[in-house]
Amino acid sequence: MPNSDAGHASVTVIGLGLMGQALSGAFLKNGHATTVWNRSTDKADLLVAKGAVLADSVRHAVTASPLVIVCVSDYDVVRELLDPLGDVLAGRVLVNLTSGTSKQAREIAEWAAQRDVAYLDGAIMTTPQGIGAADTLLFYSGPQSAFDRHESTLRSLGGATTYLGADHALSSLYDMAVLTIMWNVLNGFLHAAALVGTANVPAAKFAPAARKGIATVADWLSGYADQIDGGRYPALDSTIDTHLAAMEHLIKESEFLGVNAELPKFVKVLADRSIADGHGGDSYAAMIEQFRKP
Amino acid sequence: MPNSDAGHASVTVIGLGLMGQALSGAFLKNGHATTVWNRSTDKADLLVAKGAVLADSVRHAVTASPLVIVCVSDYDVVRELLDPLGDVLAGRVLVNLTSGTSKQAREIAEWAAQRDVAYLDGAIMTTPQGIGAADTLLFYSGPQSAFDRHESTLRSLGGATTYLGADHALSSLYDMAVLTIMWNVLNGFLHAAALVGTANVPAAKFAPAARKGIATVADWLSGYADQIDGGRYPALDSTIDTHLAAMEHLIKESEFLGVNAELPKFVKVLADRSIADGHGGDSYAAMIEQFRKP
Repeated sequence: MPNSDAGHASVTVIGLGLMGQALSGAFLKNGHATTVWNRSTDKADLLVAKGAVLADSVRHAVTASPLVIVCVSDYDVVRELLDPLGDVLAGRVLVNLTSGTSKQAREIAEWAAQRDVAYLDGAIMTTPQGIGAADTLLFYSGPQSAFDRHESTLRSLGGATTYLGADHALSSLYDMAVLTIMWNVLNGFLHAAALVGTANVPAAKFAPAARKGIATVADWLSGYADQIDGGRYPALDSTIDTHLAAMEHLIKESEFLGVNAELPKFVKVLADRSIADGHGGDSYAAMIEQFRKP
Repeated sequence: MPNSDAGHASVTVIGLGLMGQALSGAFLKNGHATTVWNRSTDKADLLVAKGAVLADSVRHAVTASPLVIVCVSDYDVVRELLDPLGDVLAGRVLVNLTSGTSKQAREIAEWAAQRDVAYLDGAIMTTPQGIGAADTLLFYSGPQSAFDRHESTLRSLGGATTYLGADHALSSLYDMAVLTIMWNVLNGFLHAAALVGTANVPAAKFAPAARKGIATVADWLSGYADQIDGGRYPALDSTIDTHLAAMEHLIKESEFLGVNAELPKFVKVLADRSIADGHGGDSYAAMIEQFRKP
């Protein structure tokens, strides 16, 4: 069985939802012999027309390639599909791009370790449309040798392909971590757009100021990260006490204007707790201690 | 009375807290004849050593310059200081950089309009240390002629000085809008750092991925802003239904890891409401309707 990634190595994709189809399409586009399988075979029609081989069983799909990608709806489906296939997966690299939690990733890793399957857990940080683009980010975690062997094939899926480390939980954690950032950026923007909207400012007119604010705070993260890692939070800029006063303005403003005040109230609750814990004179980075609590 | 900004126009600064001192210092550094006043005069010592003139009363401070900047602790203090000075402020430009709400800004604007005072409300989007830097952002709103007349003097305070429009509320609204974005970006980052921290990933190691995630979502804002302004939210990327499934993962992950799950629960509550309103198949921009509600 070939296990080198030299040339256009062959690859198998199990699961042909919108994302699985996009993954398969990117492999084909990059010249990889691509075997596909899906419970309902009609999802494969377009890919077969582009040169994919449709396997007649999931077992045959696995045996077709040294690298097997699984991308299905959830981890229960992953387990259901793979449980009978430990014998044929042995010696191959299994990459699971299904969305799930770190606990689920570690459970599959344990299952794979017992069967001599080299397991990589992955996370796709884009939509199906973004697959294959130069700046598309995918995370992988698990044994580095397995990643290294297939890196050039995996890189067909996104130019910002990133190996995180041996701990299988890392992909899922980074996935969740980046998503929580994204939702909070979006919620901040939407609250902001609602605020300026009360003065008839179109969101598109406000967007450049929003982007400048976002870029400014992004520049602070490295400094705050160092404080978090060091466990000391000297207020080189504003103290949490100072932030609190502005948060109270924001709540008052939101209520007065009739826009959502729950978000700023939630932000303030966290600041109140941090101050109660004695961090009023510290920088915003001290709030990490509130986020570490259940 | 001179009212042109040609050359090094004179300026008065009322209020010498840390911010007022920084403002005065920036004016002096840029060659402006600067008159200062503060309730406790010792705050002026350093500035006087640098060439500032300390007025012996707030009334004399006002009469010293065509441009009067007020930066005190809150709007009550602004009103208390300025109420007796309508006669000497008449014909001058009053710039209020005190933090407050849009309602407070409009109240001062009304007071000023009755007294022939050209009033600009402003917001400082930096700490005292940032005053005078090339990328420092300050917002101004009120009559454009007043801003134009003193723009070059005001630009001493920050290179990203921005005039927003005639509505006095705009500075305060933009201030609050940018702050809500900043706190939400920071909270997203802190929640994320707590998540990856459970796998012993230092915040500094995670920060580059955080910045990439932030930059990615910042790039979406213009498109979402257009949807918000148009009132239609076609899901060109993910639907809110798809986001919801990932939010549920995040809550489960946060609870399992023992980190704060309130933030993702709050995020999910908003998504639930948006779906209940029929927006499950729409893009995240449809969530604006939740933020517009009290």
